Amino acid sequence: MILLYFVIACGVLSIVYAIWAIQSVMAADAGNARMQEIAGAIREGALAYLTRQYTTIAIVGVVVFILAWWLLSAEAAIGFLIGAVLSGAAGFIGMLVSVRANVRTAQAASISLGGGLEIAFKSGAITGLLVAGLALLGVSGYFTILTQFIGYGPTERVVIDALVALGFGASLISIFARLGGGIFTKGADVGGDLVGKVEAGIPEDDPRNPATIADNVGDNVGDCAGMAADLFETYAVTIVATMVLASIFFTGEQAITLMLFPLLIGATCVITSIAGTFFVKLGANNSIMGALYKGFIATAGLSAVALALIVLFFTGWGTVFTSPVGPSFSGGSLFFCGLVGLAVTGLIIWITEYYTGTNYRPVRSVADASVTGHGTNVIQGLAISMESTALPAIVIIAGILASYGLAGLFGIAIAVTTMLALAGMVVALDAFGPVTDNAGGIAEMADLPAEVRNTTDALDAVGNTTKAVTKGYAIGSAGLGALVLFAAYTSDLHFFAAEAAPGTFFDGVSVDFSLSNPYVVVGLLFGGLLPYLFGGIAMTAVGRAGGAVVEEVRRQFREKPGIMQGTERPDYKRAVDMLTKAAIREMIVPSLLPVLSPIVCFFVIYLIAGKSNGFASLGAMLLGVIVTGLFVALSMTAGGGAWDNAKKYIEDGHHGGKGSDAHKAAVTGDTVGDPYKDTAGPAVNPMIKITNIVALLLLAVLAH
Amino acid sequence: MILLYFVIACGVLSIVYAIWAIQSVMAADAGNARMQEIAGAIREGALAYLTRQYTTIAIVGVVVFILAWWLLSAEAAIGFLIGAVLSGAAGFIGMLVSVRANVRTAQAASISLGGGLEIAFKSGAITGLLVAGLALLGVSGYFTILTQFIGYGPTERVVIDALVALGFGASLISIFARLGGGIFTKGADVGGDLVGKVEAGIPEDDPRNPATIADNVGDNVGDCAGMAADLFETYAVTIVATMVLASIFFTGEQAITLMLFPLLIGATCVITSIAGTFFVKLGANNSIMGALYKGFIATAGLSAVALALIVLFFTGWGTVFTSPVGPSFSGGSLFFCGLVGLAVTGLIIWITEYYTGTNYRPVRSVADASVTGHGTNVIQGLAISMESTALPAIVIIAGILASYGLAGLFGIAIAVTTMLALAGMVVALDAFGPVTDNAGGIAEMADLPAEVRNTTDALDAVGNTTKAVTKGYAIGSAGLGALVLFAAYTSDLHFFAAEAAPGTFFDGVSVDFSLSNPYVVVGLLFGGLLPYLFGGIAMTAVGRAGGAVVEEVRRQFREKPGIMQGTERPDYKRAVDMLTKAAIREMIVPSLLPVLSPIVCFFVIYLIAGKSNGFASLGAMLLGVIVTGLFVALSMTAGGGAWDNAKKYIEDGHHGGKGSDAHKAAVTGDTVGDPYKDTAGPAVNPMIKITNIVALLLLAVLAH
Repeated sequence: MILLYFVIACGVLSIVYAIWAIQSVMAADAGNARMQEIAGAIREGALAYLTRQYTTIAIVGVVVFILAWWLLSAEAAIGFLIGAVLSGAAGFIGMLVSVRANVRTAQAASISLGGGLEIAFKSGAITGLLVAGLALLGVSGYFTILTQFIGYGPTERVVIDALVALGFGASLISIFARLGGGIFTKGADVGGDLVGKVEAGIPEDDPRNPATIADNVGDNVGDCAGMAADLFETYAVTIVATMVLASIFFTGEQAITLMLFPLLIGATCVITSIAGTFFVKLGANNSIMGALYKGFIATAGLSAVALALIVLFFTGWGTVFTSPVGPSFSGGSLFFCGLVGLAVTGLIIWITEYYTGTNYRPVRSVADASVTGHGTNVIQGLAISMESTALPAIVIIAGILASYGLAGLFGIAIAVTTMLALAGMVVALDAFGPVTDNAGGIAEMADLPAEVRNTTDALDAVGNTTKAVTKGYAIGSAGLGALVLFAAYTSDLHFFAAEAAPGTFFDGVSVDFSLSNPYVVVGLLFGGLLPYLFGGIAMTAVGRAGGAVVEEVRRQFREKPGIMQGTERPDYKRAVDMLTKAAIREMIVPSLLPVLSPIVCFFVIYLIAGKSNGFASLGAMLLGVIVTGLFVALSMTAGGGAWDNAKKYIEDGHHGGKGSDAHKAAVTGDTVGDPYKDTAGPAVNPMIKITNIVALLLLAVLAH
Repeated sequence: MILLYFVIACGVLSIVYAIWAIQSVMAADAGNARMQEIAGAIREGALAYLTRQYTTIAIVGVVVFILAWWLLSAEAAIGFLIGAVLSGAAGFIGMLVSVRANVRTAQAASISLGGGLEIAFKSGAITGLLVAGLALLGVSGYFTILTQFIGYGPTERVVIDALVALGFGASLISIFARLGGGIFTKGADVGGDLVGKVEAGIPEDDPRNPATIADNVGDNVGDCAGMAADLFETYAVTIVATMVLASIFFTGEQAITLMLFPLLIGATCVITSIAGTFFVKLGANNSIMGALYKGFIATAGLSAVALALIVLFFTGWGTVFTSPVGPSFSGGSLFFCGLVGLAVTGLIIWITEYYTGTNYRPVRSVADASVTGHGTNVIQGLAISMESTALPAIVIIAGILASYGLAGLFGIAIAVTTMLALAGMVVALDAFGPVTDNAGGIAEMADLPAEVRNTTDALDAVGNTTKAVTKGYAIGSAGLGALVLFAAYTSDLHFFAAEAAPGTFFDGVSVDFSLSNPYVVVGLLFGGLLPYLFGGIAMTAVGRAGGAVVEEVRRQFREKPGIMQGTERPDYKRAVDMLTKAAIREMIVPSLLPVLSPIVCFFVIYLIAGKSNGFASLGAMLLGVIVTGLFVALSMTAGGGAWDNAKKYIEDGHHGGKGSDAHKAAVTGDTVGDPYKDTAGPAVNPMIKITNIVALLLLAVLAH
């Protein structure tokens, strides 16, 4: 168990790295007074929003905490609290850093591209490593306390339940943060673009647009804090689910070894991620994407080596693990499962780049379609968004087949764990995006020379691609992670039914998960509708928030005619306040949908057709959510990215460039893509997992 | 077996009705010379297109015919031929009538609304009753030949295979017709609208627009012939699948009784549908929708009575049917299953009207969103399209639960059969749409007085709603029908595995359809991606065809400046020819996707993980297609309808009316909705069923 302390030490290491990097970012020059004033407004807005968001979530959190204590155990309630607090902390600290790094990036970019890249990436790396490090620390630390200090056996139910509750805490934060942040950021973006770019004909980030500060605030609370909470959740939940599977599939020493195994993968990958950050250096060719990919490839390569070492020295290459309920496999097979996880990550990144990069057919076809108008642009974008789901789905299918072939269900879990162990590096690439986006905004608003804006634009364009790529990764891993959760659900159910004492709830439960059981079909259909309904509500919320911004900006333009002449200052704060209220109000109902649906599904079918069919329907519902959720989320994020970059491609001088009719059509497409890729699509991620984890908790509660 | 002749007689009755109605339509006044000239151009274009489409399909058909003969039997090949020919005939004759009824409707509308309604509806009823009648005649006639003349036993495999092959013939026609027709009609519509309404600022159907004849041709080949082939297929396939289930679940006399039962439902509903057409009469309040609904309600009510009579006199109310492999149920239960089918139909129609009618929140929210621009209109439309899937899915779930509770899987089959038995009436409501749409076009182009156009517009607006409603019905029934096919697949598999002689293909096959089998999960994901990929390809095709029309129209405007002044005639024929080629070319690959995917899925998993897992994956793939296909299709058709009517709502004078910025945004939304609701969405229907029926045939081939 000494290794547990190694895992905890790696978690602490990520915090040490974060502290060092924060100091290094803060030491950089924060620019002139005007820049600091703008950055101050953004910071203030972001802080005000996040404070309010987390206060609201805290109210829901307290209710759940009490319920968890009452229905499960004190350990579970505390686990929930740990998950929620750490997930919130990762997002909050990341946001605090990025609202300070933005202005410093703008300033550094006024001197050199390399300098701008360094600060922006370091800021992203802080968020990234906090996500991976805090998640690892939460799971391993709590596991250590429960097993080493309180003295529970590692495979006891109370430990498992507490860890699952920790995952639920992270999930609950993540769905609220994703959705609230998403509605805020895209409400500002959609509204600001429509009224600024399309109606008033002023460029993005023009200080005359009253929604421009809100837009920059949105980048931080949506793309940075939202993504951080999302991946924190997937990371924590996947590691927990893998540990649960190990505890169910194996017995004795082997169970404990395999419960530690995912923690060790996470721990070593914190080290390889930190190492990888030092590879991010601008080469002679000045390729920003190249610099970032160097870091990612270094991390992936080192992680493969680390994985080999873990297998060699911890589990043993040839050791055979024998499960009473599943296939046997060797330590070496687990290494290859890890490689499958790395390969899936690489392929999904590559496919997403193909669908969202300006160099390939999909984005160009959307740009071409813009020439014939708004309608054809949107049609082509929707076509690409649907088409783009096929290859990632096939990669995921191949990953499942390969890792299952190697080591059964546990092999799939190890592949996903390895995939997620790279989260530190991947989130770093993503959180780099909003910082450069903000830096560009600040450069524009502070009237810095055009070269500065060109430098930040170059960084921002790369940020758009990395943001899209990270979302593909987040969804792919969420889908696979949910499959592991689903496996945990079926195994748990089997376990509870087998152990049930006469007269207890699970006594006589015998679940038929066969597709020829109509209650399974019903569950699949019910689960399938959830991502659609959820996506619809999220899109409506953004449309409503964006429409309100348009009205507000139009009102300001009308009442203060000096704004457009540059003689009067717009009231930025009002737009921020309005969006804050709208986002908080709109996030509640859809966030509760995935929490309550599993409970409703189970009890309705239980009443109609008995316990066993209730569990069958609920299980099928989980898979239904995964299946449609995966396609909804993949199509939305890739489609949104394609629209965004088709606009950029036209702005680079194709099809008539800025101001042409094709550009106007492309702006419409980009506007439609915004809530697709930044609100509804990514929020489907946590909703997939939350339904699964609520189902696991429901089993624990019913067994209690 | 005397009852078989009653069923055949009912099929013949529908043809007699069609002949009578055709004569009655043809006897009407065909208008002035200019009107006849325009109608002639539309007729010529439609005939040219359909001839070319069916010639192309015939080539594929001959290949399949030879394969069916070689791999299965002469009986199966001939069954395939019967299904294909009759399905093609229903669409072709319907189209021939509707291209003659259009000009007569325009002429009649110049005298009275009631007169226009009568001709348009009668023309729709011809298509509707030919669909139901020919499908019934095909299935019952071939069944009679095989069992009464050739002397096979009704439950022999050769009979079952031949009937399934008949369904496959219908399916193959239907996917090509839906997709080819859909690409043609929406390419013309999207292209024509973009360049006409948005760029040149001329109204729809303006004779100066070179794409206007193509647009009218499209209404006939897409909405009329395409929908006819689609519902012919669902009807035939569902009745066949119900018969297959009866032959598998039951033995002896009971099997034969229950095989005849769906045929009797279809037969009596032909009579009730014909009776219902006579209830379509304009009341004192001049409500067109009211008149149509009167017909539908009369048919539904009479069908319920007919169902009760069948149960009373044919099966017996209290007779208990005992299945060796499923639950027992009474004749009375079957009556209630039929009622469930009627209730599902009614509810789906009502929900679709809510989501696509101008009187309710969804359409109005899209219209409201148009005020703030193109982007918000599209966002809100997409939001509504996603949201609109929830209630129909819940209705379908409730239908499954209720009918399964009453009579097991066979109960679900009877509910769907009853739902589809109304197809004659429902298709009549749908095929009424293109006729009135065309009538409006002819009135516009022939410069008839404004009142005539107002009358045809009133008919057309109702046609839009009935088209949307019919699509909801078509998809709901297709989804449920596919579940019956899936049940037939699992039952067939069970049957083949149980009967397998040692050494034959099915020897030792034992399929685990449980969701905890990863090959099932893989199948679900693979099936889930098909509607997305297919939808993406279809949307791209329409975008490409529409873009080509825009280029062509722009070229004509540029090269013939007299067109816009009205001094020069546009070259209508070129647009029609161009679209014909484009539609035929683009329909091939996507149509083969659902035909080949089941085969690929089975053999890939067979090679990796053995026969049993291959069958498990294939089965799961079928359900995966149903789950995502249902949501993709429902969301597309309802969303498209909402966009269309939001535009109409604005044109009625809200938010600034025609020509306002809100109207421009609404036209963009309508353009996006066009391929959604008329190409990709409805074509998902046949693709869902074709995958299922190919899987059934694959089993038959492997067993052979």
